Amino acid sequence: MIRIGIVGYGNLGRGVECAVHHSPDMKLVGVFTRRQPETVCVQSEVPVYTMERLYEMKNDFDVLILCGGSANDLPTQTVELAQYFNVVDSFDTHAKIPEHFSKVNQSSEKSQHVSIISVGWDPGLFSLNRLYGQAILPQGHDYTFWGKGVSQGHSDAIRRIDGVQDARQYTIPVEEALESVRRGENPDLSTRQKHTRECFVVAKDGADLKKIENDIVTMPNYFADYDTTVHFISQEELDRDHKGIPHGGIVLRTGTTGFQQENKHVIEYKLTLDSNPEFTSSVLVAYARAAYRMHQEGQYGCKTVFDIPPAYLHVESGEELRKKLL
Amino acid sequence: MIRIGIVGYGNLGRGVECAVHHSPDMKLVGVFTRRQPETVCVQSEVPVYTMERLYEMKNDFDVLILCGGSANDLPTQTVELAQYFNVVDSFDTHAKIPEHFSKVNQSSEKSQHVSIISVGWDPGLFSLNRLYGQAILPQGHDYTFWGKGVSQGHSDAIRRIDGVQDARQYTIPVEEALESVRRGENPDLSTRQKHTRECFVVAKDGADLKKIENDIVTMPNYFADYDTTVHFISQEELDRDHKGIPHGGIVLRTGTTGFQQENKHVIEYKLTLDSNPEFTSSVLVAYARAAYRMHQEGQYGCKTVFDIPPAYLHVESGEELRKKLL
Repeated sequence: MIRIGIVGYGNLGRGVECAVHHSPDMKLVGVFTRRQPETVCVQSEVPVYTMERLYEMKNDFDVLILCGGSANDLPTQTVELAQYFNVVDSFDTHAKIPEHFSKVNQSSEKSQHVSIISVGWDPGLFSLNRLYGQAILPQGHDYTFWGKGVSQGHSDAIRRIDGVQDARQYTIPVEEALESVRRGENPDLSTRQKHTRECFVVAKDGADLKKIENDIVTMPNYFADYDTTVHFISQEELDRDHKGIPHGGIVLRTGTTGFQQENKHVIEYKLTLDSNPEFTSSVLVAYARAAYRMHQEGQYGCKTVFDIPPAYLHVESGEELRKKLL
Repeated sequence: MIRIGIVGYGNLGRGVECAVHHSPDMKLVGVFTRRQPETVCVQSEVPVYTMERLYEMKNDFDVLILCGGSANDLPTQTVELAQYFNVVDSFDTHAKIPEHFSKVNQSSEKSQHVSIISVGWDPGLFSLNRLYGQAILPQGHDYTFWGKGVSQGHSDAIRRIDGVQDARQYTIPVEEALESVRRGENPDLSTRQKHTRECFVVAKDGADLKKIENDIVTMPNYFADYDTTVHFISQEELDRDHKGIPHGGIVLRTGTTGFQQENKHVIEYKLTLDSNPEFTSSVLVAYARAAYRMHQEGQYGCKTVFDIPPAYLHVESGEELRKKLL
């Protein structure tokens, strides 16, 4: 059994707890938190510890899955813990991945452990599909569409507007743009042409709805470059109809082959997810299996999804996989 | 530059020739054929040799791409050539893959070369997506649909019917079944419910069309289990409208997460290909790059797409990939 520890217990940590529970070759040893352990209410029969306990329990687990945030937790936490453990994180600040990789790699090389960073669906499965697509169709174009799904960052931005009590924002791919890409037309798409944004807003009593709507649709970076729709609804409606955290998206590679580039090909990879954090957690858990196996083989250093042989993710042996899945 | 040799020059060999031509890090050294070399008309400035020349040119190339057929060529050819060379093949008889793997592995281990077998899109990219899907969503169902595309085997079967001059058969997924899977309904689908078959047939002068149609739709294994449509057309129409070799298909993994399995997820991987052999060739060439790199690192033995770290397929370095694609 692969012994797993969870560091950080928010949506992602809860998802990992559940995914480990459903993995026949894994066992959850503990949840580690910066909160008071007795205030953390886990879903299964697993003990909750303070972060400090990690070091003395060093030999009790094989892989730590780090479930903190990319902005404040992982840049220091992964680097620190990779000095002592095999770790997997979901660091998703795309622009800072090279820097994060380099620091985590130093820690992992020193301790001869395996770390796998930026695991999830984007970065993660979407990145993989961008890589496979480019490798197979070197003459071509890449497209990534996100949604339909909830953007936490955009929902938060709306909540900070004066007079707003609560809000939920959906990012939605523009169907026309998607169809043009699927037809192999290689369109140049502006931000506005790729996605629309739909907002469900609960206003405080007596708030100026016109002003709130205007504040949203003109907000720089977040909404100004998009066609944005705003719906005002009650808190009850928001809680009833918009409590899920669905997401997903599509990666496309369109390319040509033939001496005259006469043949077109389209590779499309599409995710439709009821729960963004639970799906991301499931990816993290599969890569924790890979980290364990690579460490068992004596490998070490920082890896990404690009470096992991797919077979390491699956519970069955190479022989079984060749027989059943190839 | 990675020096490539092509063994066998049919549709696949021609596709490899073209894909190598478009790869900045590769060079085509020669085409090897069992025919008289002077009768083989290649598309680029590449010499054509007899198969016997392979052995004396042993040091002239890094990887051989084997473009023969799975029924008669590859079962012996890959095993033989893996004794001397890094090789990549597209062996696609699913049921015989374990046996083929074992024999090729023996050859490759003896000579300390790398072989990669069963490369293409099914087996190949579709297999990869079945593996990633199962690893990430262990509670779930797999579906594979093929088409719309030309089935060479079914077209040949029609051509063998008395009174038939020429024919082309398309395999087509049933849209209803596909939609049910996408909705996460996990339907149990019979052969008839998954695919239909459409046949374009050129009859010989004076042939009995009713009888031909009946012979097709009742043919065991090939057509009897499907809803099959037969269209009689002229040779001119067949040559004009059906000369391409399009294909493609869809791999889906539908699964659930959550302690009550309350959240559904759908992973969909779809290929839409103008030219089945040229796309397969492009996959072979990317895996030839991986074979070369793994051999350079001192690895050896038989591998499949399940064993290859994705980064080995792409022309750029790990650092560049992390920066641009992760």
